[in-house]
Amino acid sequence: MPEQITILGSTGSIGQSTLEVIKKHPEKFELVALGAGTNASEMIKQVKEHRPKFVAMASEEAAEQVRKEIPSQIPVLTGEEGLKEIATLEEVTYVVSAIVGSKGLPPTLAAIRAGKTIGLANKETLVTAGHLVMEEARKNQVSIVPIDSEHSAIFQCLNGENKKEATRLILTASGGSFRDWSRDQLKDATVETALNHPNFSMGPKITIDSATMMNKGLEIIEAHWLFGFPYEQIDVVIHPQQIIHSMVEYRDGSIMAQLGIPDMRVPIQYALSYPQRLTLDEMKLDLSEMSRLDFRVVDVERYPCVHLAYEAGRKGGTYPTVLNAANEEAVALFLNGQIKFLEIEECVEEALNQHVAVQAPSLEEIELADQWARELVMNLANASRSGKIR
Amino acid sequence: MPEQITILGSTGSIGQSTLEVIKKHPEKFELVALGAGTNASEMIKQVKEHRPKFVAMASEEAAEQVRKEIPSQIPVLTGEEGLKEIATLEEVTYVVSAIVGSKGLPPTLAAIRAGKTIGLANKETLVTAGHLVMEEARKNQVSIVPIDSEHSAIFQCLNGENKKEATRLILTASGGSFRDWSRDQLKDATVETALNHPNFSMGPKITIDSATMMNKGLEIIEAHWLFGFPYEQIDVVIHPQQIIHSMVEYRDGSIMAQLGIPDMRVPIQYALSYPQRLTLDEMKLDLSEMSRLDFRVVDVERYPCVHLAYEAGRKGGTYPTVLNAANEEAVALFLNGQIKFLEIEECVEEALNQHVAVQAPSLEEIELADQWARELVMNLANASRSGKIR
Repeated sequence: MPEQITILGSTGSIGQSTLEVIKKHPEKFELVALGAGTNASEMIKQVKEHRPKFVAMASEEAAEQVRKEIPSQIPVLTGEEGLKEIATLEEVTYVVSAIVGSKGLPPTLAAIRAGKTIGLANKETLVTAGHLVMEEARKNQVSIVPIDSEHSAIFQCLNGENKKEATRLILTASGGSFRDWSRDQLKDATVETALNHPNFSMGPKITIDSATMMNKGLEIIEAHWLFGFPYEQIDVVIHPQQIIHSMVEYRDGSIMAQLGIPDMRVPIQYALSYPQRLTLDEMKLDLSEMSRLDFRVVDVERYPCVHLAYEAGRKGGTYPTVLNAANEEAVALFLNGQIKFLEIEECVEEALNQHVAVQAPSLEEIELADQWARELVMNLANASRSGKIR
Repeated sequence: MPEQITILGSTGSIGQSTLEVIKKHPEKFELVALGAGTNASEMIKQVKEHRPKFVAMASEEAAEQVRKEIPSQIPVLTGEEGLKEIATLEEVTYVVSAIVGSKGLPPTLAAIRAGKTIGLANKETLVTAGHLVMEEARKNQVSIVPIDSEHSAIFQCLNGENKKEATRLILTASGGSFRDWSRDQLKDATVETALNHPNFSMGPKITIDSATMMNKGLEIIEAHWLFGFPYEQIDVVIHPQQIIHSMVEYRDGSIMAQLGIPDMRVPIQYALSYPQRLTLDEMKLDLSEMSRLDFRVVDVERYPCVHLAYEAGRKGGTYPTVLNAANEEAVALFLNGQIKFLEIEECVEEALNQHVAVQAPSLEEIELADQWARELVMNLANASRSGKIR
């Protein structure tokens, strides 16, 4: 019986790749519903090509546009309720959670409560609400399979092993576009040079997060929740070629690593087909191309965002929410030319310093902390026009 | 209940490391018997330190020496029969097969027939008699766990996976002491330079096999039998640092790799404790030391022994026996200064060319082919004094 799939966030890059994977294996995967935020034109295209039974758009306006262009027998639901509905449909067995940002959290939690297997690509779900999500998953005996390439690698390296015998999760990091710059050079880093990243052509937000290594910081927190390891047992190593996607060390000194071509279709397909592996022919790594792999220990002075993430993760409560929200806001300000590159980390640090955290927060408390951090960063940025942030 | 262990070949380097591992985990491993060939003095030392219940020496003379020096209540058996006896003792649950050469084969087969789990470090067992050994293992539902670091790595990379989804086994090779020499330079390679190998301090035979890459050739044949993969699906890649011990590629493009400090205690302990992993603290790989890993595709022109091993493996029957015996003899002649480095491969090739193979050979037919190949190489070497081998 093929997996019956809802994609939350189908119009983004993970969503699009997920549709490709589903299409290649019709005997294994069947699309039930597509959900997205505001991108009506991409959704119309997807509905015409992939024929889901249900559609949901977060924005009422976008929903209206979609309705006009697609066959009338396909219902187009709206808002958070619409997304929750397609995530919990009786016939659905698997939900891909790929909506970017905190909007992805409520429908993902609803899917978990409805007992659906989760393919997780939404960072915020675990960073801000890891305690809620993992507890719901346990209660409902739901598997959460990571889609992110680093976490997928760790998941694969833990497969068939006894987790208690693992001593360390080792996330690999590209080091970003400013990998070889000094702190001093970073002062003048521009948006243009930051976006000129060698390996992936990613979105601008992720590219900046990769340059500050905040992406790794968020991944550390995700790994903590997803695999249940304490922060002392989660390490990061810089590996510019991005061939090794992450590793797990065991107590006998063995390290298991997962490697391959850096292409999101591999972890997406793995998440959907797990515990099986299906054919993906064009993904064969040519060993003659893998001539050299480099590794470098992370210099925390050079990448203070990694340090901030460990701190926020260790303190827990609403700190990771503040870390994430302050970072999102600061990156947006940097991309708009309103703050400098090194002010991103300053904003995040200041937000963490000023925050009065709530422990074991509810969804509402998470939402409040998120808004508080965003407003604080806006104020900091305004203040910065007359000088330094701190 | 601790594993009750017999070590066949305790006085060699694998045997010695096995004793170290056993000593560290008395709650998991209990030594029952030690077996060896002729090294009486090392055996006397081992018996005094590790107190086995039984001893066996292949040589009657060595047995006599041992008897004189150890407590009289410990029986010292002799010959092939003695080795078989300690490999099949009722109380024994696990046999480490580490006798070098074809002498290891009969007691290993006896242990399999007696239903003992096998930790396999003896190459000849699979190279010359893979068809017999694996069939007996199947019939007796016996697990054969590899001790060799490359095969242990592959074993670990297949753990928890569906073997049918694996598309390629990738053995890593150091490339040996002449890695960066041209074919032309190899003509004058001496014993001294060959033995100056950077990573392991191995025995002279293995060091030469590593320089010709015949060790990888033999490992290819072992991997074929051990994991049941056809030769087209077994590859070799040169990896000078020997940090990645081998890899397995899956049909979705993912490659799983096992890495760590190159120390035989890791795979030995894994083989004994599998499916558990026990602590081995001093084996932690310092990631800051793993600054760079290199990979290079094997040039078959440069390493014809790899090509010869594929050929012998594909043809099957007594060809792998001839490959191994001719190589052993030729390496001994090279170490004695009687032939040149490049004549090793010529001897092996000529032996394979002249051989009339027996398919699915019995132990006796294997023994005959082995002797035939050794004699042929001796004759070739005598002939070579008056010119080239072929």
